[in-house]
Amino acid sequence: MSSAGTANIGVVGLAVMGSNLARNLASREGNTVAVFNRSYEKTETLVTEHPEAGFIPAKTYEEFAASLQKPRTAIIMVKAGRPTDAVIESLMEVFEPGDIIVDGGNAYFPDTIRREKAVRETGINFVGAGISGGEEGALLGPSIMPGGSDESWVTLGPILKSIAAVAEGEPCVTHVGHDGAGHFVKMVHNGIEYADMQLIAEAYDLIRRGTGKSPAEIAEIFAEWNRGELESYLIEITAEVLRQIDAETGKPLVDVIVDQAGAKGTGAWTVQTALSLGVPVSGIAEATFARSLSSHPEQRAAAASLPGPDEAFTVADQDAFIEDVRQALYASKIVAYSQGFDEIRAGAAEYNWQIDLGAVSKIWRAGCIIRAQFLNRIADAYAAEPELPALLTAPYFADALSRGQAAWRRVVIAAAQAGIPAPAFSSSLSYYDGIRADRLPAALVQGQRDFFGAHTYKRIDKEGTFHTLWSGDRSEIEAEDTH
Amino acid sequence: MSSAGTANIGVVGLAVMGSNLARNLASREGNTVAVFNRSYEKTETLVTEHPEAGFIPAKTYEEFAASLQKPRTAIIMVKAGRPTDAVIESLMEVFEPGDIIVDGGNAYFPDTIRREKAVRETGINFVGAGISGGEEGALLGPSIMPGGSDESWVTLGPILKSIAAVAEGEPCVTHVGHDGAGHFVKMVHNGIEYADMQLIAEAYDLIRRGTGKSPAEIAEIFAEWNRGELESYLIEITAEVLRQIDAETGKPLVDVIVDQAGAKGTGAWTVQTALSLGVPVSGIAEATFARSLSSHPEQRAAAASLPGPDEAFTVADQDAFIEDVRQALYASKIVAYSQGFDEIRAGAAEYNWQIDLGAVSKIWRAGCIIRAQFLNRIADAYAAEPELPALLTAPYFADALSRGQAAWRRVVIAAAQAGIPAPAFSSSLSYYDGIRADRLPAALVQGQRDFFGAHTYKRIDKEGTFHTLWSGDRSEIEAEDTH
Repeated sequence: MSSAGTANIGVVGLAVMGSNLARNLASREGNTVAVFNRSYEKTETLVTEHPEAGFIPAKTYEEFAASLQKPRTAIIMVKAGRPTDAVIESLMEVFEPGDIIVDGGNAYFPDTIRREKAVRETGINFVGAGISGGEEGALLGPSIMPGGSDESWVTLGPILKSIAAVAEGEPCVTHVGHDGAGHFVKMVHNGIEYADMQLIAEAYDLIRRGTGKSPAEIAEIFAEWNRGELESYLIEITAEVLRQIDAETGKPLVDVIVDQAGAKGTGAWTVQTALSLGVPVSGIAEATFARSLSSHPEQRAAAASLPGPDEAFTVADQDAFIEDVRQALYASKIVAYSQGFDEIRAGAAEYNWQIDLGAVSKIWRAGCIIRAQFLNRIADAYAAEPELPALLTAPYFADALSRGQAAWRRVVIAAAQAGIPAPAFSSSLSYYDGIRADRLPAALVQGQRDFFGAHTYKRIDKEGTFHTLWSGDRSEIEAEDTH
Repeated sequence: MSSAGTANIGVVGLAVMGSNLARNLASREGNTVAVFNRSYEKTETLVTEHPEAGFIPAKTYEEFAASLQKPRTAIIMVKAGRPTDAVIESLMEVFEPGDIIVDGGNAYFPDTIRREKAVRETGINFVGAGISGGEEGALLGPSIMPGGSDESWVTLGPILKSIAAVAEGEPCVTHVGHDGAGHFVKMVHNGIEYADMQLIAEAYDLIRRGTGKSPAEIAEIFAEWNRGELESYLIEITAEVLRQIDAETGKPLVDVIVDQAGAKGTGAWTVQTALSLGVPVSGIAEATFARSLSSHPEQRAAAASLPGPDEAFTVADQDAFIEDVRQALYASKIVAYSQGFDEIRAGAAEYNWQIDLGAVSKIWRAGCIIRAQFLNRIADAYAAEPELPALLTAPYFADALSRGQAAWRRVVIAAAQAGIPAPAFSSSLSYYDGIRADRLPAALVQGQRDFFGAHTYKRIDKEGTFHTLWSGDRSEIEAEDTH
């Protein structure tokens, strides 16, 4: 540990994501990359297979630390949870104050807040960094969402900028905010991804059942949509998946795949966090629940005999219907993103993070799963009005919703009429009609709560908190606001 | 602590809930009630105001313990969180192995699991008991959901049975399951309550905006509904709330109340827990989100200018529309309860509780907020088939849904057409159409996940886990099931 080494960055954990990230780092000018893995075999394989990278392998944490320039900077790419804690503890033994430990895994942000606090006490910097883009992104350029201290960003910023995806000349990385801000934003990214995917799935299902078109034909529709305002990676790969023919059966692959969607938990985290923050992310919730509903085959089998509508679903004008679905998809997508950005804003307020929402939308323009043209519009909206109360009220989006709402309503109506589940389409329309409502029946809910639990209510015509003596003479009294 | 006292039950915490519960206990034959409060003033007031109760007041925990027969049994009625922990610690100092500490507050069930484990190590029994029914229920007969050990139930059972509400001759209390089972079930009870209230609010809003009837006129509709299959406490009090005229303005009270619904967290807990368990409780989620949406006035103000449908909402046949809404409400309610009971079943599996779902529905028939005739049908369904995969597939409910689905669809369509938010109605219909679907577009979601993250998929025609080499030659390989 006495003399500084020659590598400016190290990677710990050399499974696919870690190896690819290390190769990405090594391929950029100015970087020399130290690599370490718990079992040395993986290190050796990587170094042997990629001599061009000039990796500096280490067999022990001591060697690893010694191979790094000061301030030592290491990115951990191991499984979230205990394995991450174990590596952090090992690095803390060989690192010194001012050094930087980066967790590039998919940590749950409260864990990152906890770890940052514990590591900071030793004078070492800890940075939780969300990295999106999967294996390919890690190798070629991911979208990176680092949290942590300002001090760490001085050293880390240039390194991360060197490997990030580039959108319109700008690297897809920004210092999101302190401690857990990066992993928080990555979590919401994934939540939005759930909503986006579910909306696409509903659009596909409606078109297929409404028009009888084949998956390959619907692939062409998505490919066409990808040339317009819906242009995005998810629309692009939807066309690819729908086009795919299963070699074994000759059927569309999508018809061969079991219709039970898996999940790795970030959608659920996003909704759970939103519930704690009081932010309605109904689109993300419905998408997460749609996956869990699909994955209960025993319930689905038992419910299969429940009847649908009497009349068969027929679409008179197929092209018009498909255009309606496109507009419904775009409108619902605006709602999903608006809800997601609300959650980021609420999280920033709760955890004292200074998060630039426009900067977040910009670093999602490339490298990550939800990358899309659309994100430029979000950046524009926040540039024009940083304190925007809700994304869907920005002129560009309000205008798109105004234009699209009639089609959106027709699609939700068609789904209800046809017996086709469209939970995310329907939920986002309900949200739209709820947030723009002059009066909501929430007033009745408050009345009920006051009746059975003396939870009190406020009045529209004067200050204060009130309670009706429901079990007494039903007069109103002013109450202490304790409920 | 040496000699045993004369009281068979004690109450700690003498705010309204605790006082009322103590009075309820004292009023039942065979009970002698010891009472303790941190500040003695409250104890003195209670004892003075209710000489008929024959309370045994205590000034210290030592006195309190000494006044109790063995096994000493005490119900804590203080705020959830730290205050509860503080009382538990104090009681543990003066209680002995075999004694019973009951937490009758609104604890979050993981806290109850933690506390039960810690207390059990000393040989003292700890019981988390959900108590529903508010202040009035505490005094006259609540629905009680105790967890904890079998040993504790021997002593506690008869005491709780003496004070519980009675439904058709049966006391509304059962030993729900071990440790946190009682508070878990109470949590889901509250989540269902959120859904029930939101559905009623949507029904009211649709009728009001669709027919132009006054709140007082709609009160009569709810009163009428309360004589049929919707009969329940919440429908009953809805009529009462809608009938109420504000004395100050002469307007319906519901129009004077600010339309922002509050929440105390149990709805959010229910949804957060369901997300961890992989149970889609979309109705409860939409209800919880509807409350949070209503409580963001700054967003609602900004969104107020977003347009609704071009055409005004008119209902041709008012009576037919009202009957449609009634049927939609009943169908949506079946979905909400089905989802809630799913969550209890999944929780029981996760935490190794033996929960009798039929017994749970029976103890909700009286004393609690969601009390309703309807719960007898749920008890019947579980009596007929204890392993029912989903409540809505039981013949009685499947039949009700079959009869109601056409009306339900018309109401969801009317809401979308009219621009009236009906998130819980719409969501429950989407759930119905999702769970009964032969094929879901979840297959496309699995294809997307395999494309961007190599998350693999299963095939409908053979065992195994597969991955398409999307970036390669697009052939399919058999994959290890690690994702």
